[in-house]
Amino acid sequence: MSTGYAYHELYGWHDTGTHAGLLPADPRRGLQPHRHFENAEAKRRVHELVVATGLVDRLVRIAPRPATDDEILLVHSRAYLDRLTSSNDTGGDAGDGGSPFGPGGLDIARLAAGGVVQAVTAVVEGRVDNAYALVRPPGHHALRDTGMGFCLLGNIAIAAAAVRLSHGVERIAVVDIDVHHGNGTQAAFADDPATLTLSVHQDRVFPPDSGHVTERGPALLNLPLPPGTGNGGYLEAVRRVVLPALRRFRPDLVLVAAGFDANAVDPLARMMVTASGYREIARLLVDAAGELCGGRIAFAHEGGYDPVYVPFCAHAVIEVLAGVTEPFPDPFEANFDHQGQQELQPHQEAAIVAAEALLPEVPMG
Amino acid sequence: MSTGYAYHELYGWHDTGTHAGLLPADPRRGLQPHRHFENAEAKRRVHELVVATGLVDRLVRIAPRPATDDEILLVHSRAYLDRLTSSNDTGGDAGDGGSPFGPGGLDIARLAAGGVVQAVTAVVEGRVDNAYALVRPPGHHALRDTGMGFCLLGNIAIAAAAVRLSHGVERIAVVDIDVHHGNGTQAAFADDPATLTLSVHQDRVFPPDSGHVTERGPALLNLPLPPGTGNGGYLEAVRRVVLPALRRFRPDLVLVAAGFDANAVDPLARMMVTASGYREIARLLVDAAGELCGGRIAFAHEGGYDPVYVPFCAHAVIEVLAGVTEPFPDPFEANFDHQGQQELQPHQEAAIVAAEALLPEVPMG
Amino acid sequence: MSTGYAYHELYGWHDTGTHAGLLPADPRRGLQPHRHFENAEAKRRVHELVVATGLVDRLVRIAPRPATDDEILLVHSRAYLDRLTSSNDTGGDAGDGGSPFGPGGLDIARLAAGGVVQAVTAVVEGRVDNAYALVRPPGHHALRDTGMGFCLLGNIAIAAAAVRLSHGVERIAVVDIDVHHGNGTQAAFADDPATLTLSVHQDRVFPPDSGHVTERGPALLNLPLPPGTGNGGYLEAVRRVVLPALRRFRPDLVLVAAGFDANAVDPLARMMVTASGYREIARLLVDAAGELCGGRIAFAHEGGYDPVYVPFCAHAVIEVLAGVTEPFPDPFEANFDHQGQQELQPHQEAAIVAAEALLPEVPMG
Amino acid sequence: MSTGYAYHELYGWHDTGTHAGLLPADPRRGLQPHRHFENAEAKRRVHELVVATGLVDRLVRIAPRPATDDEILLVHSRAYLDRLTSSNDTGGDAGDGGSPFGPGGLDIARLAAGGVVQAVTAVVEGRVDNAYALVRPPGHHALRDTGMGFCLLGNIAIAAAAVRLSHGVERIAVVDIDVHHGNGTQAAFADDPATLTLSVHQDRVFPPDSGHVTERGPALLNLPLPPGTGNGGYLEAVRRVVLPALRRFRPDLVLVAAGFDANAVDPLARMMVTASGYREIARLLVDAAGELCGGRIAFAHEGGYDPVYVPFCAHAVIEVLAGVTEPFPDPFEANFDHQGQQELQPHQEAAIVAAEALLPEVPMG
Ligand SMILES: [Zn+2]
Ligand SMILES: [Zn+2]
Ligand SMILES: [Zn+2]
Ligand SMILES: [Zn+2]
Repeated sequence: MSTGYAYHELYGWHDTGTHAGLLPADPRRGLQPHRHFENAEAKRRVHELVVATGLVDRLVRIAPRPATDDEILLVHSRAYLDRLTSSNDTGGDAGDGGSPFGPGGLDIARLAAGGVVQAVTAVVEGRVDNAYALVRPPGHHALRDTGMGFCLLGNIAIAAAAVRLSHGVERIAVVDIDVHHGNGTQAAFADDPATLTLSVHQDRVFPPDSGHVTERGPALLNLPLPPGTGNGGYLEAVRRVVLPALRRFRPDLVLVAAGFDANAVDPLARMMVTASGYREIARLLVDAAGELCGGRIAFAHEGGYDPVYVPFCAHAVIEVLAGVTEPFPDPFEANFDHQGQQELQPHQEAAIVAAEALLPEVPMG
Repeated sequence: MSTGYAYHELYGWHDTGTHAGLLPADPRRGLQPHRHFENAEAKRRVHELVVATGLVDRLVRIAPRPATDDEILLVHSRAYLDRLTSSNDTGGDAGDGGSPFGPGGLDIARLAAGGVVQAVTAVVEGRVDNAYALVRPPGHHALRDTGMGFCLLGNIAIAAAAVRLSHGVERIAVVDIDVHHGNGTQAAFADDPATLTLSVHQDRVFPPDSGHVTERGPALLNLPLPPGTGNGGYLEAVRRVVLPALRRFRPDLVLVAAGFDANAVDPLARMMVTASGYREIARLLVDAAGELCGGRIAFAHEGGYDPVYVPFCAHAVIEVLAGVTEPFPDPFEANFDHQGQQELQPHQEAAIVAAEALLPEVPMG
Repeated sequence: MSTGYAYHELYGWHDTGTHAGLLPADPRRGLQPHRHFENAEAKRRVHELVVATGLVDRLVRIAPRPATDDEILLVHSRAYLDRLTSSNDTGGDAGDGGSPFGPGGLDIARLAAGGVVQAVTAVVEGRVDNAYALVRPPGHHALRDTGMGFCLLGNIAIAAAAVRLSHGVERIAVVDIDVHHGNGTQAAFADDPATLTLSVHQDRVFPPDSGHVTERGPALLNLPLPPGTGNGGYLEAVRRVVLPALRRFRPDLVLVAAGFDANAVDPLARMMVTASGYREIARLLVDAAGELCGGRIAFAHEGGYDPVYVPFCAHAVIEVLAGVTEPFPDPFEANFDHQGQQELQPHQEAAIVAAEALLPEVPMG
Repeated sequence: MSTGYAYHELYGWHDTGTHAGLLPADPRRGLQPHRHFENAEAKRRVHELVVATGLVDRLVRIAPRPATDDEILLVHSRAYLDRLTSSNDTGGDAGDGGSPFGPGGLDIARLAAGGVVQAVTAVVEGRVDNAYALVRPPGHHALRDTGMGFCLLGNIAIAAAAVRLSHGVERIAVVDIDVHHGNGTQAAFADDPATLTLSVHQDRVFPPDSGHVTERGPALLNLPLPPGTGNGGYLEAVRRVVLPALRRFRPDLVLVAAGFDANAVDPLARMMVTASGYREIARLLVDAAGELCGGRIAFAHEGGYDPVYVPFCAHAVIEVLAGVTEPFPDPFEANFDHQGQQELQPHQEAAIVAAEALLPEVPMG
């Protein structure tokens, strides 16, 4: 089993400033300067844990390189890229007022998108069996014409489009387990029956009016789960909706938008998934890829904002990719795995049933 | 309307070290040094917001002083106080491995408990109409013989016992809206029919097996709400359980364990309450105190771990106490008040109904 | 003895962003995002120490208010004020690329200048004997037409001009002990024989080519000391240059630009002054004011960038103002007071001698 | 030219706690919790700069491994190692109250010492031409029986003793350019004429009464420079004392204790060396090694506490080792290289002359 791993220290240099969490600091609005929720800590600490436990020694390092204009323009408009380019010297905001970047921010965003392209390409070319791209800034909210939700470039959408073009990969399934709706990826492939976008997320968190189960397209499926969903509900969602959808779609490649903001202490959502939950989700997805497309699966890091716990969640996923049989213990298991209502609840099942009903709409491969 | 406000800068000096969130940092367990979830930021920023908006000018400053041995021994054992005293020069842990403190930690804990005593006393003596004690470390998990859950001394329990002794206050109701079970306060008055302990919290978060609706006592009521409960469920809980219980009990004084960790971005729970929700909860409690006991109500700060949003939640509550009619706007309202499932959900109502059924057990005043 | 103390929590909200110390973060220049040297910590911690030791209880709190346009225009040009005003909603830089501010930054700068005005006015009106204004951002580098060196408004120059206008104070001496040259204050009064500007600083640190002993004016004296000067050199400088100049000038009021960046661990200069050195300097200045102008002296906080040690230096000075006879011990005394070459060195004396020679040019009062 | 580079992310996990700079936080002493001066930032940022500029691609990564008991016991006593071992589970202090470590701290200290051993061994074996070991915690103050000055194990002393034993390296010169006296290394070889310990440092900073020019031994030379010394004085010191001593001693291997705390903004000393100064010092030392011992030279990172500027200083040194001809520009050059008195001063020269006089005592090789 060989697993690619794309990380670059510059990802931690993406500068989201002294925002008060989500909003620009402003004393007149009571917003004392602080950190942006999306700062370097959580991701840098994932990498450091991967090194500290020795897991990195079982991975094949993949060197990120900047995404090219051509790659970016597969997903974004020239006007938007021009806008980012013209702000690259000063920094600015990618569009919605919540996606700040500093000088050189586009350079780092290119390196993130390019890191995913490199990781996915390595999988497609068979140089590695599967891959994890630990990138920053995230990408799954970015739209054709604007950044959004901390995202500048649609990392996964760019990688999917790039390997389709470069390597002729036909059917691609993107499974988005970030706790927020993968609206950018969905929009990028809204008219494309060959790219299944499948997003499991907390009901109406971000974008605020997006990700409804009722949204339709040639190959899209949304599963909004109620706030408070834990391992039980998530695993049931994967087993009853995600896996059947994948089996029906029969992708040639599976990409996973690996957000960890459904974790049990994340500030930016209200879910309860633990490292063991993420481990099991990853195992199900990796097994499905093994069954359906020769194991070709690549994960790209998206959200996840608790600097202490995200590392253990991501580490568990990377262990699964690498086929580690003796996992590094999650020291928070005693705290988080046994909280009340971790198991599937009836109102969670109702949400799953609603998405299950739409499985017949997934185009068969 | 005059509102007392007890705060001391030393509360921010309580040192919870470089814990990895909840656990001592330890590279062998993958625990990179970081902050403890319970660090100074969230509380210090509450105070700074209260100053920045000018709200402080409408408050009567109450100077905290250290709680005395006699006061502490109303709630804690001599053995435990001796243990804390002997660790005061070096720092240590108050008992459960998750309640660290630095050198001088007991001194600060005394100042927190004493701050609540001072605030409550000012209310009881009528020097102020009501009061807010912005103290740290928190207190509601501390038990007779041990610290627990970041708490060293049972601040509210000590204050309740102290004013009963010093001023003959007979019937005291403690309403605990911290998202975790107020087990320490409950235990302190487990045999006391004159002190109603009423805790609304997330089902089985902390302590892990505590706060069940089935727990019984001469004057206790627990309302565990499911994870993911928002303003709708919380307000319904207050209206249908807390207020009826207070009306039945007819307290001479209401104390509120004002934790803000049910807020919509708190790491340590999975609830969705916003500043407007806390504002309305406070209004209901203040009105109830007005109706039942001449308005005698004091809030003591407990949990609440998001440094950015807790300040707006607490600020809203203090505004209600001070009778502010033009509240300072919550800049996060657009983000958090309209998330999915903020309104009461059926499975939340079921939890409320279960607690409602126990109202007849509340002793009548 | 009554001592005024002006501090406002909003001073800590002045936002200098994620600068890499002195320069805007920029990955292309290798500048990883970090803090600006001039961030809130050092000043906020001074205030917290003043509270923690109880010193605040011996002080008379003076409420800062924003400086008015009229006050600001006594020192700055309308064009510059308009420029700051137009950037107030977005934040920006006050002029030299090293003086960043966030949204609302001008509001805070006004509050800083106004805090000094209030403190100085209280002294002039005899409501307090002396005063300390713990303000931020600093002011002594700001020029008529531009901000500079972290400074937006010339706090002390504004206060001096304001009380001259409002209260007819004729002769004012500004003693600048900040380790950098007080070029802004010097420039503001470059043609004014009634305002003596006297700056003791490290030779050519900032501004880089400024503060030479050879600079001349109707009432100015610069004493550039060599890097590495400690308590010995500083006290000799005060005794042999500052005090004689004051005695010659015979001011009606003494203002002190109280920078603490000559402290023994400051990053932004290379001096070795300790808390005991600052204490003695303050004592000499306070005694001189007592001898010369009825004790009318006010200190305004300027630089000082080590968050750990600046508090003890400033605390010592405030103790002197307040006439505290049993000072709070400096816990770093054993570390810093006995380093090599703390005593006056011959090359330091040479610099003092050069300035001494210019004393006859100080206009006699 | 091939240059080894030893770094491990775990070096950043060495936990120096919430110390107030140098002293344990303690509210009773006015010591508000903060960071220890010796925290992870400065070193981690060196590594990140080395990656960000691409310099890392020109280096040969050397994997650190823990130093063995046998290696440690070449320099330290069994009693001391036992003491560290018995504190390894809880954390503690290595001896002087200023050398704190967390749980697993000995493990990281072993990895630091072992990283230096690996780097030096690679040079000795000719696998690389020279090497840089970017380790933490530092080592040059550690004594046989106790830790001291943030140091747990004497990294360089251990490496020197280890390669002498393992590879029969006879004559080793240790040049210590850390701004503090390399007392630990000096003590380790106090009786050994085959190991020249040569320390250039600020006069009497740390240890407080140590590093005098008058100290004698079979092969030791101390050059205490006055506070305020800049590039001019340092380069003169290297040219007139260090290089002649090396030429006289004729080492088989040169080790450099590469502290960067003589940098122009370091809190823990009062020197003014800039990146260009460090670059030139490194060039002189590398050239000397080329002339004297086939270029066999290894640098081990010691102090250096400004997180913003240390990276540029260390980066310049590593560039010299790697033979980079187009150096990455120091963005702070305009700020720091032109400060007053960067050039050699007479009182600095006097100190150099005093050490020069002792050159004849250096044993000839
Ligand atoms: Zn997300
Ligand atoms: Zn809580
Ligand atoms: Zn200064
Ligand atoms: Zn050092």
